[in-house]
Amino acid sequence: MDQNERSEVIAVANEMADAARKAILPHFRSASLTAENKLENDFDPVTVADRAAEEAMREVLSKRRPRDGIFGEEFGKSEGESGWTWVLDPIDGTRAFISGTPTWGVLIALSDEAGPRLGIVDQPFIGERFVGGFGVAEAHGPLGLRSLGTKSTDSLADAIIFTTFPEVGTAEEREGFEAIAKRCKLTRYGMDCYAYALLAAGQIDLVVEAGLNAYDIQAPIAVIEAAGGIVTDWQGGPAHDGGRVLAAANAEIHALALEILSKS
Amino acid sequence: MDQNERSEVIAVANEMADAARKAILPHFRSASLTAENKLENDFDPVTVADRAAEEAMREVLSKRRPRDGIFGEEFGKSEGESGWTWVLDPIDGTRAFISGTPTWGVLIALSDEAGPRLGIVDQPFIGERFVGGFGVAEAHGPLGLRSLGTKSTDSLADAIIFTTFPEVGTAEEREGFEAIAKRCKLTRYGMDCYAYALLAAGQIDLVVEAGLNAYDIQAPIAVIEAAGGIVTDWQGGPAHDGGRVLAAANAEIHALALEILSKS
Repeated sequence: MDQNERSEVIAVANEMADAARKAILPHFRSASLTAENKLENDFDPVTVADRAAEEAMREVLSKRRPRDGIFGEEFGKSEGESGWTWVLDPIDGTRAFISGTPTWGVLIALSDEAGPRLGIVDQPFIGERFVGGFGVAEAHGPLGLRSLGTKSTDSLADAIIFTTFPEVGTAEEREGFEAIAKRCKLTRYGMDCYAYALLAAGQIDLVVEAGLNAYDIQAPIAVIEAAGGIVTDWQGGPAHDGGRVLAAANAEIHALALEILSKS
Repeated sequence: MDQNERSEVIAVANEMADAARKAILPHFRSASLTAENKLENDFDPVTVADRAAEEAMREVLSKRRPRDGIFGEEFGKSEGESGWTWVLDPIDGTRAFISGTPTWGVLIALSDEAGPRLGIVDQPFIGERFVGGFGVAEAHGPLGLRSLGTKSTDSLADAIIFTTFPEVGTAEEREGFEAIAKRCKLTRYGMDCYAYALLAAGQIDLVVEAGLNAYDIQAPIAVIEAAGGIVTDWQGGPAHDGGRVLAAANAEIHALALEILSKS
């Protein structure tokens, strides 16, 4: 992909994020959403907003990048002809969404067979967007335009670690997380995909999660790598297929965390 | 206090919140803050922003309400002559603040000896403000101006419950929280004072915390009560001195949670 096409692709990704924002925001903190969730009685509801946002993003792609494949949380996979696939999670953090917290996000990645190359993590309610890949590493939001860059923390004793749920995953996975967390300066919960954005923005040092899907992690991987961080699975291998994920601000803190997690 | 004075006092509280925003935002997600925290090596750092914000709010009061008392987290208590006291926490959620999460807040309450009568919970980064008391119950933010109103959930099985840390407090306090949480539909963590605002906004049903100070809870009490909710301690008594707090969307869900907590 040449520089012109990269710029075009970044513009397309932003257009998709804009379309998703527009589709989702009317449903955020609305009474009707609450009612629907109640009927479904489900912790991970596929909401009207979720579907509308993926449809809106697919519509942008059908016009601007018709030859690319799509893998979306809501409407599945379609093969492309270009070698590129858009990996979409229209609302990552549906439990956050139904609780009204501003920690869910729209996740957009553009990937080839080696993994994600471009990613967007967008938080529509705050109006904050993190973009990484193809030479770009920046955030737009309430504080204006800022470059992304990860922290240089080199000891767990100075590190801030995040995961969304204290359970993390299985009992074994929880133990793995806690073995690191108890050595860190500060452990925090509840941020969903926003935690990965905070890592890319140089605010925190580690995010450790388990049970992820590919569409949950591909956009964060691209944003974090563009900002100087590292994302792998708990054995140090690629994380773009999901599962157990270790995201770290730099190589040193990654190695320290991996040493503990790889024994899990 | 007559209606004119109430309106004036609401205007003063908003002016204080504006002043606090201006004092704090330049320090949020700044590299210098990170450095200072590192030196202090402390989980609850008294930051430059914290002090600057309380000073800014005290300056507004010295001009507009010089006869009122002040009880601030940073600069302590000063007696007044009016019978009213402003209870201030310039940054509630300093651990959130140093992690970059948008869940800390500026807390402003106006209280008499019976407790808080007016409260503001402000989140400067999002630009969202929740105001309750003296006939007002509203939020201004990214979605515009909205009325506050709590949920009508009447069973724990339908309830969403929040607390900031899974530890909650002592081992006994954690048990109390978990005894309720395991019966709820969804448990979430990490929202600091923003959880109380979500309860007032009709997004969640219960917030259960322990080890709070008076300035942590007085503003949330006023906002939640104005929105139709109930805040007590774990025995059903007043919560405005802090300690163990149970905030609930309505009388029914409060009673169900209190029945469990009062045995702790």
